Amino acid sequence: MLYEGKAKKVFATDQPELVRVYYKDDATAFNGQKRGQIEGKGAINNQMSNLLFQYLAEHGVPTHFVEQVSERETIVRKVDILPLEVVVRNVAAGSFSKRLGVLEGTVLPRPLVEFYYKNDELGDPLLTDDQALVLGLASQEDLAELRTRALEVNRLLQERFAACGLALIDFKIEFGRLPSGEIVLADEISPDTCRLWDKDTHQKLDKDRFRQDLGGVEDAYQEVWRRMKGGLSA
Amino acid sequence: MLYEGKAKKVFATDQPELVRVYYKDDATAFNGQKRGQIEGKGAINNQMSNLLFQYLAEHGVPTHFVEQVSERETIVRKVDILPLEVVVRNVAAGSFSKRLGVLEGTVLPRPLVEFYYKNDELGDPLLTDDQALVLGLASQEDLAELRTRALEVNRLLQERFAACGLALIDFKIEFGRLPSGEIVLADEISPDTCRLWDKDTHQKLDKDRFRQDLGGVEDAYQEVWRRMKGGLSA
Ligand SMILES: Nc1ncnc2c1ncn2[C@@H]1O[C@H](COP(=O)(O)OP(=O)(O)O)[C@@H](O)[C@H]1O
Ligand SMILES: Nc1ncnc2c1ncn2[C@@H]1O[C@H](COP(=O)(O)OP(=O)(O)O)[C@@H](O)[C@H]1O
Ligand SMILES: [Mg+2]
Ligand SMILES: [Mg+2]
Repeated sequence: MLYEGKAKKVFATDQPELVRVYYKDDATAFNGQKRGQIEGKGAINNQMSNLLFQYLAEHGVPTHFVEQVSERETIVRKVDILPLEVVVRNVAAGSFSKRLGVLEGTVLPRPLVEFYYKNDELGDPLLTDDQALVLGLASQEDLAELRTRALEVNRLLQERFAACGLALIDFKIEFGRLPSGEIVLADEISPDTCRLWDKDTHQKLDKDRFRQDLGGVEDAYQEVWRRMKGGLSA
Repeated sequence: MLYEGKAKKVFATDQPELVRVYYKDDATAFNGQKRGQIEGKGAINNQMSNLLFQYLAEHGVPTHFVEQVSERETIVRKVDILPLEVVVRNVAAGSFSKRLGVLEGTVLPRPLVEFYYKNDELGDPLLTDDQALVLGLASQEDLAELRTRALEVNRLLQERFAACGLALIDFKIEFGRLPSGEIVLADEISPDTCRLWDKDTHQKLDKDRFRQDLGGVEDAYQEVWRRMKGGLSA
């Protein structure tokens, strides 16, 4: 094993340019302070991520995805993960609502892109562009590219989720650099990393059910995956 | 009285476009959680601010300053304070060091400008440009102007303080809008709002002595003011 994270394990393969990712059922929140298990989550997040990565690739977004090898395991291109987590918000929720005093559910006038320093010890702090530059975490060109890519991913995901009766409130993505220098979308896209609300009832169908002890956590993950597979509106 | 803040009182005058500011000895820190008094601070901060506002005006930076009327009182142009506090950092310290894991005292490769949402209830949270725009707190043009002005103020203040043997680590300024729409520098520039270290010993000569219970708080304010008035290196 190369690395064990909070939700996944990463293994080396025969080929140095590829790694195998294994999705666990472990769930954490609030920077690891809250821990638990969500039964079946690993299988759902793996398959859902792969479905979305393939969808994004078909629409011109380069990703790390290579091949799903089991319900919980996927071969991906090995990348150097950039130290910035990229968040896109369409509707106010979570830390954004709390920090800035904007009522959860407020539709933003346009999608908002934010960068966070991927650093568990520091609790993944928000970064301004200037802070990222001064700390040497990215170049001006990288930031511009990440912003453009993130907005494109947002547009495509909104469309894909809308077809399943899901509103994409916000999400976190990670990008990585290939040996060639090319930046590709990596990590995962799942109910762990997206806020997804039923488009009519606004019911939360994502990790907020775990974070906020709302119950029905497993059911929510299954409901999202059921809708995604079917590709049908609920 | 129009308004009582944490460090100053603002009074109306005979002229609607002018207000009178009275500087108190009250000191607060950590968003008002820590409270105290720094004897003689009001008189020092008033006189020091005025001296610096006049210096900046002579160097082309428009400010709210009109006339000092007593040791603790000054007539200034009444402005609508912009809801952004502007911070410039030359050396890592304080919340920047803590949040981003940069050792206090680390010289930054270039001055860093940050915007904070001036909102006591929310604890003055850091804002990215995009957040400020999406929240409607400023326009793109405003942000560009504030950034340019802040860096110019930094350059001028660094020079002025260096002549007194003081290193300007970081500072917070506020800007306001005149009825004409023009943006001018407002509020105060003092050891309450600047981090100032002796350039050789790196002794802290600012409100950090109060925040961190370092003792010699009054002496530090007096020492800064003594050096400023004299205009001589210690
Ligand atoms: N294609 C990839 N190549 C290398 N590492 C990756 C790739 N995709 C994701 N990772 C990294 O795998 C690690 C494990 O994932 P996860 O359990 O979510 O970790 P974390 O606890 O850091 O969120 C993360 O650090 C993630 O950035
Ligand atoms: N020229 C001005 N016109 C109107 N208000 C001003 C001007 N300069 C400063 N102020 C405001 O006066 C208030 C009182 O100052 P202070 O005691 O420092 O308040 P605070 O507790 O908000 O920091 C602040 O809100 C400040 O923004
Ligand atoms: Mg992760
Ligand atoms: Mg103040």
